[in-house]
Amino acid sequence: MEKTVKEALKEIVGEENFTDSLIDLIAYAKDASEHQHRPEAAVWPIRTDQVSAIMKLATREEFPVIPRGAGTSLAGLAVPEKGGLILDLGRMDRIIDINIEDRLAVVQPGVIYAELDRALSPHGFFFPPDPASGSVCTLGGNVATNAGGIKGAKYGTTKDYVLALEVVLPDGRILHTGSKCMKSVSGYDLTKLFVGSEGTIGVITEITFKINPKPPVTSTAMATFETLEDGGQAISEIMYSGIIPSALELVDRQSLKAINENTDLQLPEVEIMLVAETDGYTKEETEFQMKTIMEIFRKNNATMVKHADESKGGAAALWTARKSAYGVMARINNNLIVEDLAVPMSKVPEMLRAISDLAKKYDLQIPTVGHAGDGNLHPVVSFDGTDPDQVRRVEEASEELFKKVIELGGTLTGEHGIGLAKIPFMHLEHDETSMDIMRSLKRLFDPKNILNPGKMGLEA
Amino acid sequence: MEKTVKEALKEIVGEENFTDSLIDLIAYAKDASEHQHRPEAAVWPIRTDQVSAIMKLATREEFPVIPRGAGTSLAGLAVPEKGGLILDLGRMDRIIDINIEDRLAVVQPGVIYAELDRALSPHGFFFPPDPASGSVCTLGGNVATNAGGIKGAKYGTTKDYVLALEVVLPDGRILHTGSKCMKSVSGYDLTKLFVGSEGTIGVITEITFKINPKPPVTSTAMATFETLEDGGQAISEIMYSGIIPSALELVDRQSLKAINENTDLQLPEVEIMLVAETDGYTKEETEFQMKTIMEIFRKNNATMVKHADESKGGAAALWTARKSAYGVMARINNNLIVEDLAVPMSKVPEMLRAISDLAKKYDLQIPTVGHAGDGNLHPVVSFDGTDPDQVRRVEEASEELFKKVIELGGTLTGEHGIGLAKIPFMHLEHDETSMDIMRSLKRLFDPKNILNPGKMGLEA
Repeated sequence: MEKTVKEALKEIVGEENFTDSLIDLIAYAKDASEHQHRPEAAVWPIRTDQVSAIMKLATREEFPVIPRGAGTSLAGLAVPEKGGLILDLGRMDRIIDINIEDRLAVVQPGVIYAELDRALSPHGFFFPPDPASGSVCTLGGNVATNAGGIKGAKYGTTKDYVLALEVVLPDGRILHTGSKCMKSVSGYDLTKLFVGSEGTIGVITEITFKINPKPPVTSTAMATFETLEDGGQAISEIMYSGIIPSALELVDRQSLKAINENTDLQLPEVEIMLVAETDGYTKEETEFQMKTIMEIFRKNNATMVKHADESKGGAAALWTARKSAYGVMARINNNLIVEDLAVPMSKVPEMLRAISDLAKKYDLQIPTVGHAGDGNLHPVVSFDGTDPDQVRRVEEASEELFKKVIELGGTLTGEHGIGLAKIPFMHLEHDETSMDIMRSLKRLFDPKNILNPGKMGLEA
Repeated sequence: MEKTVKEALKEIVGEENFTDSLIDLIAYAKDASEHQHRPEAAVWPIRTDQVSAIMKLATREEFPVIPRGAGTSLAGLAVPEKGGLILDLGRMDRIIDINIEDRLAVVQPGVIYAELDRALSPHGFFFPPDPASGSVCTLGGNVATNAGGIKGAKYGTTKDYVLALEVVLPDGRILHTGSKCMKSVSGYDLTKLFVGSEGTIGVITEITFKINPKPPVTSTAMATFETLEDGGQAISEIMYSGIIPSALELVDRQSLKAINENTDLQLPEVEIMLVAETDGYTKEETEFQMKTIMEIFRKNNATMVKHADESKGGAAALWTARKSAYGVMARINNNLIVEDLAVPMSKVPEMLRAISDLAKKYDLQIPTVGHAGDGNLHPVVSFDGTDPDQVRRVEEASEELFKKVIELGGTLTGEHGIGLAKIPFMHLEHDETSMDIMRSLKRLFDPKNILNPGKMGLEA
């Protein structure tokens, strides 16, 4: 990046919102994935017109721009693979409006998920799609990745709550999509095209979310199963029962083992542990749902069923295993890939079996946790990245894993995105027509390929 | 359309699935709107490969193709404005799969909404977005228009349930979008680009829907208010209460008057009548919600609050006023435009006032019904289309109406679409950048402008 370009950037955002210091560039070379590449500079715009001016400059000078939130991506979405400029939206962090009557929250992209949740809480409202990184991730990133979370089965994902966007296009034009109304079918749905687009076709500078009243009562239970078949059958029967739990999480044997080796939780090392949560307006309704679920657990040979005593903080105890999983897994080895895939719910047991078989075949540890209620699994691959043989085994296992996912009617990613991590597998899920249309869309919005280039396998 | 083209069409679909008889062409000149234009031929394809062959032919010979379901559009979406070929998908009417474990229904586009509902019912499941035309409209049309209905506030609209599509592109290629998994962020969201695209960029030939378990218990109540302010305040307070009714419908004074003049229902002619429905798994929960809502009705000076006795079919009685509205309004005059707009919920009273003022100003009858729970209103304009003066007044009132809608932060259409009816107003809601992007998308998918040409204001 030439000095004149850097000067122009400083002019746009001000000295204090520009950096090209080595320490910053090293920090911005990574996100939460295993990928890295150093950018040439970074800016913190504070207004939409600055973002627009930056994009105009980038289009003229043809340098890559990588929009970035908190950098929590597990698939390399925020890594500046081709260098260029990091556009850190973290300083555009204002909650512009919370409007309960109209059921809306309007935010800048740098607002942290938990901040919005805190602001909604006094009104009895919440923003349902809560990713595991909710305490640090920014809402702009959530929209750009269509973030999911544990409430997906009942409440959907980020896309289901984005009503309108302000987006800066690669050429600097400011596009307004959607409507602040609950319903609108006025023209093409441009909003959803930007949700999950991984910063490759526009920079999100303002978001209007639909928000939900938060059901005041929850109930939590946990169950353990000695076989994947029993656990899988329980998941299916819950669906048939007509109950949609507000969460239905799973922890597999390898995860339970890893947790026991690294904590004193002394969890039973069964094939599969399920944690279910129900919610509602009244205790009677919420417990009715949970009773139905616990009956299904017992009928399917659960070796243990525990119902939390909500008044004594019992729910938190039941969540310990699920929530401690990542922290524990990070200790197993030098490197960690939190994988992400989804399969139809009925295929969850078969997928878990396949993951376990792959771990044996390639002599790897692949503990798995996931969202059983929507078929979204996270196999966590631990390895030593300095050992070429382990790296090779991880690569081979990954390829076999995703072939199996597609064979079962699944998808490469339920909530983490394609980024850099899934590029090699795009052809498994998307045929030539589908890839051609995606590439055409990228070219339409970003003909010079300056926005987050090198991502999503769009450069054939 | 040349004779050789007609012969080629017969070859593709068979003699029995082709027509150019005058009586058929006259029928296909109209949908449920006031627009009309005669096509040159019509076909009933029965397989995707036939649709593909038709589109290849249309691209080569450059004739318009208008995909059509049941033709229930109220905005001219299915009218062959530039002639050409009607592609009636009504004979592709197979329910391909209902999979409760995976929470999916896979259907062909010609399946009628009510047919799917009947098929899901024995499983205790339903497909929530139920348009008023549910007993006749086809699901392909529902997807192409992103159909809404009375359950929008709690359950969203069609877009929230479309997981995957098979689409035939204008050049005949067959595109597969989305995934049959509950969660997927694998590449751009091509699925949502086709939902609500009004048949202008692709022909939908297969749909995978997410389906929902149907809460077994409902409760219904009705309330009347002497002022719009009281009714509006009640709507706002319901939102603050944390309850989302499964339906919250409104009927205005002019509608009540029209109903009384044409039936013996003897309804109170108040400013606004609200009908609310709640649902849940248990009677206790469902009544708890309804009790909260009825308290809000009473607190805001409802002149009457009636709670249905569900065991005696009381709910049906409370719904009579709302459900008889269209039938009654159709009798007022020769012509009828069922308008469609949405505003933020808090603006519903102001919008109703504006509609009432416009009716007075232009000496028109504009009774209004609507979905108060999501701000979607349907002013129904009755007039005599043979009277040029009335037609002029309707046109002037419409323009003023939509200027007011946009001024209040609303949208031109909540669920009926742009079609032909809203083209003159597109510029009110969408600025040049937005229109430019929509036109670019149309050109990208349909460079020869053969699919449903002349719609949505995309031809500048």
